[in-house]
Amino acid sequence: MSTDLIDAQVSPTGQFDILSKYEINKLSCESRGPQYQTFRNCSLAVLSSGGHMVDGKELLETYADFDISVIPTERSVKLQVKNAPAIAFVDGKMIRGIAEHLFAVLRDIIYVNSEITGDPRYDLVSAQGVTDAVFHILRNAGTFDRTRVPRLVVCWGGHSISGEEYDYTKQVGYELALRHLDICTGCGPGAMKGPMKGATIGHAKQRDRHGQYLGISEPGIIAAEAPNAIVNQLVIMPDIEKRLEAFVRTGHGIIVFPGGAGTAEEILYLLGILLHEDNRKQPFPVIFTGPASAADYFIRIDQFIASTLGEEARSRYQIIIDDPEKVARQMAAGIQEVRQHRKESGDAYYFNWQLKVSTEFQRPFAPTHENMRGLELHRNQEPYLLAANLRRAFSGIVSGNVKDEGIRTVEKNGPYELCGDPAIMHSIDTLLESFVKQQRMKLPGKEYIPCYRISEG
Amino acid sequence: MSTDLIDAQVSPTGQFDILSKYEINKLSCESRGPQYQTFRNCSLAVLSSGGHMVDGKELLETYADFDISVIPTERSVKLQVKNAPAIAFVDGKMIRGIAEHLFAVLRDIIYVNSEITGDPRYDLVSAQGVTDAVFHILRNAGTFDRTRVPRLVVCWGGHSISGEEYDYTKQVGYELALRHLDICTGCGPGAMKGPMKGATIGHAKQRDRHGQYLGISEPGIIAAEAPNAIVNQLVIMPDIEKRLEAFVRTGHGIIVFPGGAGTAEEILYLLGILLHEDNRKQPFPVIFTGPASAADYFIRIDQFIASTLGEEARSRYQIIIDDPEKVARQMAAGIQEVRQHRKESGDAYYFNWQLKVSTEFQRPFAPTHENMRGLELHRNQEPYLLAANLRRAFSGIVSGNVKDEGIRTVEKNGPYELCGDPAIMHSIDTLLESFVKQQRMKLPGKEYIPCYRISEG
Amino acid sequence: MSTDLIDAQVSPTGQFDILSKYEINKLSCESRGPQYQTFRNCSLAVLSSGGHMVDGKELLETYADFDISVIPTERSVKLQVKNAPAIAFVDGKMIRGIAEHLFAVLRDIIYVNSEITGDPRYDLVSAQGVTDAVFHILRNAGTFDRTRVPRLVVCWGGHSISGEEYDYTKQVGYELALRHLDICTGCGPGAMKGPMKGATIGHAKQRDRHGQYLGISEPGIIAAEAPNAIVNQLVIMPDIEKRLEAFVRTGHGIIVFPGGAGTAEEILYLLGILLHEDNRKQPFPVIFTGPASAADYFIRIDQFIASTLGEEARSRYQIIIDDPEKVARQMAAGIQEVRQHRKESGDAYYFNWQLKVSTEFQRPFAPTHENMRGLELHRNQEPYLLAANLRRAFSGIVSGNVKDEGIRTVEKNGPYELCGDPAIMHSIDTLLESFVKQQRMKLPGKEYIPCYRISEG
Amino acid sequence: MSTDLIDAQVSPTGQFDILSKYEINKLSCESRGPQYQTFRNCSLAVLSSGGHMVDGKELLETYADFDISVIPTERSVKLQVKNAPAIAFVDGKMIRGIAEHLFAVLRDIIYVNSEITGDPRYDLVSAQGVTDAVFHILRNAGTFDRTRVPRLVVCWGGHSISGEEYDYTKQVGYELALRHLDICTGCGPGAMKGPMKGATIGHAKQRDRHGQYLGISEPGIIAAEAPNAIVNQLVIMPDIEKRLEAFVRTGHGIIVFPGGAGTAEEILYLLGILLHEDNRKQPFPVIFTGPASAADYFIRIDQFIASTLGEEARSRYQIIIDDPEKVARQMAAGIQEVRQHRKESGDAYYFNWQLKVSTEFQRPFAPTHENMRGLELHRNQEPYLLAANLRRAFSGIVSGNVKDEGIRTVEKNGPYELCGDPAIMHSIDTLLESFVKQQRMKLPGKEYIPCYRISEG
Repeated sequence: MSTDLIDAQVSPTGQFDILSKYEINKLSCESRGPQYQTFRNCSLAVLSSGGHMVDGKELLETYADFDISVIPTERSVKLQVKNAPAIAFVDGKMIRGIAEHLFAVLRDIIYVNSEITGDPRYDLVSAQGVTDAVFHILRNAGTFDRTRVPRLVVCWGGHSISGEEYDYTKQVGYELALRHLDICTGCGPGAMKGPMKGATIGHAKQRDRHGQYLGISEPGIIAAEAPNAIVNQLVIMPDIEKRLEAFVRTGHGIIVFPGGAGTAEEILYLLGILLHEDNRKQPFPVIFTGPASAADYFIRIDQFIASTLGEEARSRYQIIIDDPEKVARQMAAGIQEVRQHRKESGDAYYFNWQLKVSTEFQRPFAPTHENMRGLELHRNQEPYLLAANLRRAFSGIVSGNVKDEGIRTVEKNGPYELCGDPAIMHSIDTLLESFVKQQRMKLPGKEYIPCYRISEG
Repeated sequence: MSTDLIDAQVSPTGQFDILSKYEINKLSCESRGPQYQTFRNCSLAVLSSGGHMVDGKELLETYADFDISVIPTERSVKLQVKNAPAIAFVDGKMIRGIAEHLFAVLRDIIYVNSEITGDPRYDLVSAQGVTDAVFHILRNAGTFDRTRVPRLVVCWGGHSISGEEYDYTKQVGYELALRHLDICTGCGPGAMKGPMKGATIGHAKQRDRHGQYLGISEPGIIAAEAPNAIVNQLVIMPDIEKRLEAFVRTGHGIIVFPGGAGTAEEILYLLGILLHEDNRKQPFPVIFTGPASAADYFIRIDQFIASTLGEEARSRYQIIIDDPEKVARQMAAGIQEVRQHRKESGDAYYFNWQLKVSTEFQRPFAPTHENMRGLELHRNQEPYLLAANLRRAFSGIVSGNVKDEGIRTVEKNGPYELCGDPAIMHSIDTLLESFVKQQRMKLPGKEYIPCYRISEG
Repeated sequence: MSTDLIDAQVSPTGQFDILSKYEINKLSCESRGPQYQTFRNCSLAVLSSGGHMVDGKELLETYADFDISVIPTERSVKLQVKNAPAIAFVDGKMIRGIAEHLFAVLRDIIYVNSEITGDPRYDLVSAQGVTDAVFHILRNAGTFDRTRVPRLVVCWGGHSISGEEYDYTKQVGYELALRHLDICTGCGPGAMKGPMKGATIGHAKQRDRHGQYLGISEPGIIAAEAPNAIVNQLVIMPDIEKRLEAFVRTGHGIIVFPGGAGTAEEILYLLGILLHEDNRKQPFPVIFTGPASAADYFIRIDQFIASTLGEEARSRYQIIIDDPEKVARQMAAGIQEVRQHRKESGDAYYFNWQLKVSTEFQRPFAPTHENMRGLELHRNQEPYLLAANLRRAFSGIVSGNVKDEGIRTVEKNGPYELCGDPAIMHSIDTLLESFVKQQRMKLPGKEYIPCYRISEG
Repeated sequence: MSTDLIDAQVSPTGQFDILSKYEINKLSCESRGPQYQTFRNCSLAVLSSGGHMVDGKELLETYADFDISVIPTERSVKLQVKNAPAIAFVDGKMIRGIAEHLFAVLRDIIYVNSEITGDPRYDLVSAQGVTDAVFHILRNAGTFDRTRVPRLVVCWGGHSISGEEYDYTKQVGYELALRHLDICTGCGPGAMKGPMKGATIGHAKQRDRHGQYLGISEPGIIAAEAPNAIVNQLVIMPDIEKRLEAFVRTGHGIIVFPGGAGTAEEILYLLGILLHEDNRKQPFPVIFTGPASAADYFIRIDQFIASTLGEEARSRYQIIIDDPEKVARQMAAGIQEVRQHRKESGDAYYFNWQLKVSTEFQRPFAPTHENMRGLELHRNQEPYLLAANLRRAFSGIVSGNVKDEGIRTVEKNGPYELCGDPAIMHSIDTLLESFVKQQRMKLPGKEYIPCYRISEG
């Protein structure tokens, strides 16, 4: 049994090397404050990376006695872990990559909270203010490199996909890396790990020693999708919306692999943004791809988009089935255009300032029964707003399916009620049913009970 | 006449490479705010480095039409200079080292004001709070390198010394660099330039490509002592006291060359700190040195210290006359002890946290006639407090001699009045008279009129 | 079908960047000389890496029209390939790692032949002369890094092992890399690829960006065992004996995975050297390891050694079954001793000069029927000489099994005849029979017919 | 008195780090062979750099007991010096730059002799063979950097020039470095040191950390012109002709400062090469420059060239008096053309392969009385050949003036006799007389006696 427990102290890496007394006190004090639970749970997720826990709940229960604290030293801090998973250590010493992830947690949960999201001088209400915060969190995490040409491909898709689909994502990652492209994902397993694993081999073959494997997570998701070991830059954004904004502003192109409702949510977010008038002229390569066996998934998505958001939305992506090489070639070509565009407009390579992300896509959506029922799911609005509302609907469904709070809410109040244009309602229902049939709504082996109810009205 | 004028835009280096929209706005807005005059004048001083202006007043008059502004760009800012001294440019392009100094001014005047000294979360009242601020300003300037062993020698001394003395400071710098030591000075001409110039050759001979030439200035002094070109790290501290604290916390040893009342002030500051009980066991090599012709200067200083602060104070320094090699050997040996001490106590190499600097040495002293008269110049106090008061007395005298405001005050209200123990008063008078005789109170060629009056009372 | 063919020109990397006219002429001239066939065939092997050819013969037949030539340019050379395997290219451009391997072939076949093995000033007869040549070839290939501590583990074992054994080698490589150890192998598939693949992940987790994956091959073997893509330093030694010497002089420890007669040959070579009196005090960690299913293989080897070379030989290795972590821990500890020993004796870390390799182990052995029959396989000699002769016997058997020339010789003249002490003969026969039973003498699926005949006496 | 003597052992740097037993033996053996005297004397010259010996003879006499030997170690060699000048050491440890120069001597005197000039496979007779040797010696010394754009300016001129002229060379070096240009000289004092010293400051101001200060010497000259401390790459070519060829093939432009007959010799060499038909289209910026006081020197040179080699020769250089900034601007512009030309022709940046240097300029000229008398000094030949012969004439005169052997020959046999076209003879005489008048033929203070006699005939 691999639940051996280890106590250890870990020395800092990177930005925590050189601290002032003021910062040392603040860190050790705030780490014991209201953020402690989040800090502890994210730390535990990071330490259990590579282990075999299926979900966050199991993890928390197995390591119920795990504890982490910030220990001040003469010139910096150390992290003291107690009852930590043995898998994070070699001969009693913490694996360096894990230690880096652990300090990323300290940085993004405690430090960012105190310096950015908790600093009254930051405006977290206006669109510009939120975007600035996203920028500062990413810069603080060291993800920007001024000397790097555009080469970062965001890969989305499910975390529990079939073996065939997983192998396909590896193959795509491999082909991307052969073309000197990097990978950014949500940093968990499945479609979030495969492309990075494939890219590792591709970069090695091309002697590309500085491949970037950027993982962008958020506290609510990290336990379920612990960062895989290949991630060499981990950033934990404060919430889902900032995480999505981080993806679209740092990535130079996006590939969507098969997934479930969560992936549909991400697609709707992306299309909603690209449909905004201000973004129409922005080159932004988007490719939906999977092995032959996944063709049906994308056919359904494509039909759904056609019937709800229309042809303009369809023109922003291409679907490529079972051809990793073509995916990589097209993505490389698309990113060349992005580079050209940024160069001409003088925009940064490392952050897409020009992309318009309106507040509809920034404001967190709380999937209460009331909010779900109140969603405006009709065509009487600009397509980008419809996309925003559809995104929220799918966000609620994901929550009702897999998130602790969502599951409890549905258990208590019955399924969510969604209402709107009959045609749209029908499209949603058809899509979700196809997901159920394809067993994409839950881990295979358990029967699926929908957490929503379509009320056409 | 070399007052050709140039207009140009300069792109950022270092930390201004990657800015958020929020920061861009803030910078360009604040650069036009209350700090503008300081920002402009320090910039002008930096741009005129290497020219032949004798004092700040002449500089400001010559380049009365000089203007600098912060121009926002898509992803950062540029600096726009108008009517700038041609000496800062080669074929219309600003010399890189000058451009770095210029952005150091932007960083330390505008950014630091907004992020550190102007941030209400910083406590600038307590001793610990001031020290933290000093640390943050230095770290923000990139002066800390965790991988560097202790090797930074602070060199103090006059900016208008004789040719013989200047050559001697070069010789000392050369011998220090041959022993792999670096140089930190107040970054102006004279004793602040000589050691760096000598060290450049010494480092080159030892193939020491990363010699550090740290210049620490402050806004009131930079125009009179424009950073010389060899300075490869420039930091402008907010005031004299923080500048002095920066010297003693980053330097691993201090060499004092001949100077005038300003140098005496620095010596008193240093001894005051080293005499504090908490600092008694700290190794801290201090050497007073000069060519044979300067022996008298140090004899007088030594007598003054003996008769005011006593033997313990004398035990904290050694005087070496006319022997640059011995100076360097002794300094290298002393710094070895510092290294050993820091290692054993786990303290940082790049910042001396353990040194006690009490608030008496941190609080700015305004040399009004009232404050000068009120100084407690008697033995009825701990020696370190007497040192603090003597330091203030000399600070006032320097101000009355060379600073705009001081000169005007004395012109209006007559000379400062100093009172205290007759013996101490006598020592001060004797020392200052010796300075006058040695022509160390003003540039040679003009007759010196004292700005103070001893009233033994 | 993946036999698409590509024509391309490839620019040099590394040492061929800066050539004189003299060298350009020499290279392009000699590449068309007597070494051409070897040069061409090794190049083809390198270009087909990652493809699915089972043996060298198939490779040569499939790409019968493949051609390579050296094209002089103004300041260097290019390589022109015709009808090359498409697998070596991405969008028409050769993969960088493959290009590096290709220039390694040029370097080791053409340049080394002209500058070392073909230079009359080198003495290739004496033991010291051969060792010097091995050193020069390795240094010329850039494998020595003066700043690297001992960390190179040589991994030996079969190229066609079971899936379970292959996974085990990956696991061992992973655990070695977690302990900051590097991998050196014969650079083909199977046990030569697994440890490198595992180590890639281990090094990534430890943020060890400069993992060394050294592949040491020789012209007769490279086609059958084309260098895998992970090899980031490829060296082609002129013959088997120099290749073996390169392994034992650059490696700081050796791990033996299951294999067949070839692996037995390597074990005998290694023990023969370690049994030499001059090497008795040299620390040199040797571990035989495999999964539980391979235990029998090592039991047989161990018995064979016990009954032929005796207990001293057995004391030079340890057998660890099914415990990758223990293997790595023991190896790391053993290499610590090697480091200590080298430090104390002032010997280089990158090349084991002190190891005595006598001429018996350096002289190539031609497995003719006469030479095989003449081998002295009795106990009437020092154990290290018996090991040398047993090594030759197994070398002949490997040749009769898999090498073109050996197979033809046996077809023509019947099986080799081996004679000597009955007990030794019996041990050999028992061991080889066990290999046959374990299907380690040939690829599974074809019946094995022995190429040798034991004639006791 | 600074003739303190020190015994010490010095560890290798660079290429001597990793040696084979074969090389270790060879080095230590050959260092005691016929090259020993040269090796010892060049080493002594290097060790006395920065001291105050006026000529080589004085040096050899002062350090008559100096000895150097190569000591084999386990994996490399050390250099053992006995009775070495103390000036090369700091606290008993050799200054790193000096140690590098010392190993450069070992490399170029012992190693090059054995590997290049002493290797029968090198052809040192044909023009191409000599050029190849020059290339190999330079490459072996590490002077080629494939990533560097053309920026190397060769500076020629006298080693005993006036203080005003010396300051002028510093000023020019400073202006060149401000334009990111590097310096190559004969590496002695005077015009060979000034530009490097000025450039050190210029590069520092431009934060150009990797300024190249290439010194090219030869055994006969190094004692008289010991490499100054700023030289960070020292190469000792086997003879004067290869040294001159190294200058014109590695430099991207040439500046000539005032000098004496030696400088005239270099000018004639340069013009001779540029006048060759094959070189007519090569861009190659050449500037003669000096302070106002040196104008006469260049007027005389210019008149001499006009009257002997004609207008085409004059078109290959420009004369700029008293304007360092213009010199640097013109040189930077000229080097831009060189870069463009090399790029278009695919030629290397680090070595000018295309320049035609015919054997007339490669064959060493022995200034015997017979050879001097036999020089063809008439217009009945192509200008480039006349230049070659004039070069030899001046070479002989330099020898008769300052070289041991030349001085003795003239003492014994009377002045050299030169004969040829009256007009040419007259021009030579006029030029040499002007040198005498300007006191450029010998150190000031001693009366000059010509070592030659013009016999118009």
